[in-house]
Amino acid sequence: MNVKEYIEKNRGRFQEELFSLIRIPSISSDPSHKNDMQECALRWKNLLLETGVDMAEVMPTSANPVVFASKVIDPSAPTVLVYGHYDVMPVEPLELWNTDPFELVIQDGRLWARGADDDKGQSFLQVKAFEIALREKLLKCNVKFLFEGGEEIGSPGLEDFCLAHKDLLKSDIILVSDTSMVGADVPSITTGLRGLAYWEIEVTGPNRDLHSGIFGGAVANPINVLCKMIAGITDNDGHITIPGFYDDVEEVSAREREMLAAVPYSEDKYRESLDVKALFGEKGYSTLERTAIRPTFDVCGIWGGFTGEGSKTVLPSKAYAKVSCRLVPHQEHEKISGMFIDYINRIAPDYVRVKVTPMHGGEGYVCPIDLPAYKAAEKGYEDAFGKKPLAVRRGGSIPIIAAFEKVLGVKSILMGFGLESDATHSPNENMPIDIMDKGIEAIVGFYREYGR
Amino acid sequence: MNVKEYIEKNRGRFQEELFSLIRIPSISSDPSHKNDMQECALRWKNLLLETGVDMAEVMPTSANPVVFASKVIDPSAPTVLVYGHYDVMPVEPLELWNTDPFELVIQDGRLWARGADDDKGQSFLQVKAFEIALREKLLKCNVKFLFEGGEEIGSPGLEDFCLAHKDLLKSDIILVSDTSMVGADVPSITTGLRGLAYWEIEVTGPNRDLHSGIFGGAVANPINVLCKMIAGITDNDGHITIPGFYDDVEEVSAREREMLAAVPYSEDKYRESLDVKALFGEKGYSTLERTAIRPTFDVCGIWGGFTGEGSKTVLPSKAYAKVSCRLVPHQEHEKISGMFIDYINRIAPDYVRVKVTPMHGGEGYVCPIDLPAYKAAEKGYEDAFGKKPLAVRRGGSIPIIAAFEKVLGVKSILMGFGLESDATHSPNENMPIDIMDKGIEAIVGFYREYGR
Repeated sequence: MNVKEYIEKNRGRFQEELFSLIRIPSISSDPSHKNDMQECALRWKNLLLETGVDMAEVMPTSANPVVFASKVIDPSAPTVLVYGHYDVMPVEPLELWNTDPFELVIQDGRLWARGADDDKGQSFLQVKAFEIALREKLLKCNVKFLFEGGEEIGSPGLEDFCLAHKDLLKSDIILVSDTSMVGADVPSITTGLRGLAYWEIEVTGPNRDLHSGIFGGAVANPINVLCKMIAGITDNDGHITIPGFYDDVEEVSAREREMLAAVPYSEDKYRESLDVKALFGEKGYSTLERTAIRPTFDVCGIWGGFTGEGSKTVLPSKAYAKVSCRLVPHQEHEKISGMFIDYINRIAPDYVRVKVTPMHGGEGYVCPIDLPAYKAAEKGYEDAFGKKPLAVRRGGSIPIIAAFEKVLGVKSILMGFGLESDATHSPNENMPIDIMDKGIEAIVGFYREYGR
Repeated sequence: MNVKEYIEKNRGRFQEELFSLIRIPSISSDPSHKNDMQECALRWKNLLLETGVDMAEVMPTSANPVVFASKVIDPSAPTVLVYGHYDVMPVEPLELWNTDPFELVIQDGRLWARGADDDKGQSFLQVKAFEIALREKLLKCNVKFLFEGGEEIGSPGLEDFCLAHKDLLKSDIILVSDTSMVGADVPSITTGLRGLAYWEIEVTGPNRDLHSGIFGGAVANPINVLCKMIAGITDNDGHITIPGFYDDVEEVSAREREMLAAVPYSEDKYRESLDVKALFGEKGYSTLERTAIRPTFDVCGIWGGFTGEGSKTVLPSKAYAKVSCRLVPHQEHEKISGMFIDYINRIAPDYVRVKVTPMHGGEGYVCPIDLPAYKAAEKGYEDAFGKKPLAVRRGGSIPIIAAFEKVLGVKSILMGFGLESDATHSPNENMPIDIMDKGIEAIVGFYREYGR
């Protein structure tokens, strides 16, 4: 049976299985969902066992549990480790969703739900491709699975788990479906990822909320101060002003910048899809470069003072922000994090107290395109999409990928099938059904090739 | 019977009456409290009728209703109009209150509740002083009362009400207890008030929350932009940078600055009571000047992006701030408001959309100290506190005071008895019982004198 027929014949079961994962609100950033993490891991274990793995276990870590599974075809054959994550992002603001985020809705040729792409959908297509390769006797390698429950919060506990289970996780290559392609008709493999550093800043002014008439003008307002500090972190050209911040940033070669410039891209369409009149980013770099090879500074959230209905006047006691930097390969997230904290403490004026708490972080990653596994992945995309995939660096971060290389000594191939329109991390996350089908085909294609 | 004896004899009833006002959560900024406004106005009407006024009515306005009452002693005698407000500020953050904000708790010689000072407590002492003056036959003037329900949100509808009821409100002087003194042992009358302008700023970036890895660096982040705009409104010396902002600011005479410098004040104590290491304000002015005769720019609230537990990465679509300026006499709030909106629109970069909504505002006010009514007020303070009150300008705003002058052509005497420690607009609002007693004595003293 060919792959397309297999998918068509099993479509109802596939969707039921995916729905059983979607239905569990496994939001890792919210401690109240702790039980959902356990339940989702267990669901994966059972789905993996049904595909025909030799063993599958839910294993504890210092944070959320991982699911580990293994299928040995031939002890002397190479081994693939498939990594994915079963946790999802929060769903707020709920009012912007057109459907219940935890119900799988099929509409307009797409699957709509939180995690439809990131990463329940993409992990699922990995597992279904394995199922097909196994049952159709296409496998020429051993396959292990490692699905974790904390990717969206920086994979706490997973690096330690890898250190403690190096033998169990022994493999020749890691396969990951948790990235995006340039477009539905422009298949691409992500060969670079940005790193991440994330902090919470707390600014304390007076010891209580004050009457802004009686005290205003004489006592520093912590929101005003926070805004000034944040404003000072970037200049008007979009450069980050923290001394030493760019020291380790890789100067990308002219050749690679040319390759990036060759990626099909319409600035007008990009702008229009976001409904912005103009784009803004670091001077001297194109949009694709800004998101791929340059670090960033973004405020992810800010709050303080009176935020209710109406117009209360107050000089508040506290102001908060959650801020993050995307980092590029060679920037060490711990070094950057220390640098940032020192800088904020240095620029903090003496009329407020400032506390900076590092939240999570990870290094960037680069994948060489001459690995046999990369070639097998290329072949898989060609099978499914009818054209050779581009090799592109992308802006997102999967900190654990760099950790895998450091701890396990194994490179990862990022066979992702997301699209910009999938709205990962946003309301109305979705994944086109035909792209999911092609993703399965591409991975089956990889298995046809790899270990031959 | 003297005033102290009268208060002592009636203390139980007085506290019950005040409690009946406190208990009604008349928060004007929250539309869900609409019915409480009506109920609180009605409660005042009945309390006023019990004191012996000729008539009292709850009267509609385009916003919350007002309470109007009147007592005619002699049609040829001068008339005092007592102004107060029955609305209160919101009570958030509730967790910082030691008691229920809508229960009157008596402890450590103080009355604790939202509105204990501002302005249920202070309006109440006006009414009780009137009751004593009337019953003890000390009144030599007619007395009217006007209590409104929107002072904390800029008195919407009240100026129109005054325009429509000029005859009803006809008076020779307005008495207001809604301000503070320099200290419990330093009685003072407020002779200047700052004006106010208040806006909400909405900054829209992309049309949806974005993945900060995929888009970060290439699309302007509305929180970063909002912070930059807010940061730019003041310079490092605490001056406001909006062109023309200071044009109409009164240059206060050297003599008045000397008087202000003579007000007893300890910078160390002020700093310590706020638990800040240093003070910050406009360069070239003292703390008392900064809060009395200089305009300010304060962010009252800010919000946007992810503000929950944990560390979600997001490039948000929206960012908001509520910001306000305290203004000084001669700065017209509508002119300043227009200037601010123009400025923000001018500095808004073209990669975001910015909307500025004016919320409420009012002019500043100056009271001459040679008015007969001012002299009578001075005498009242001397009776109660044993020393002549200082004449000081204060930083707060009561926009309707300037409107009274404009529409009714009548000056106001600000016989306020608040203290800094009363925590108006903050959690744990309170008023010392002995200060409330002295406030009643001082106003009775005013009535002994005025119209003689």
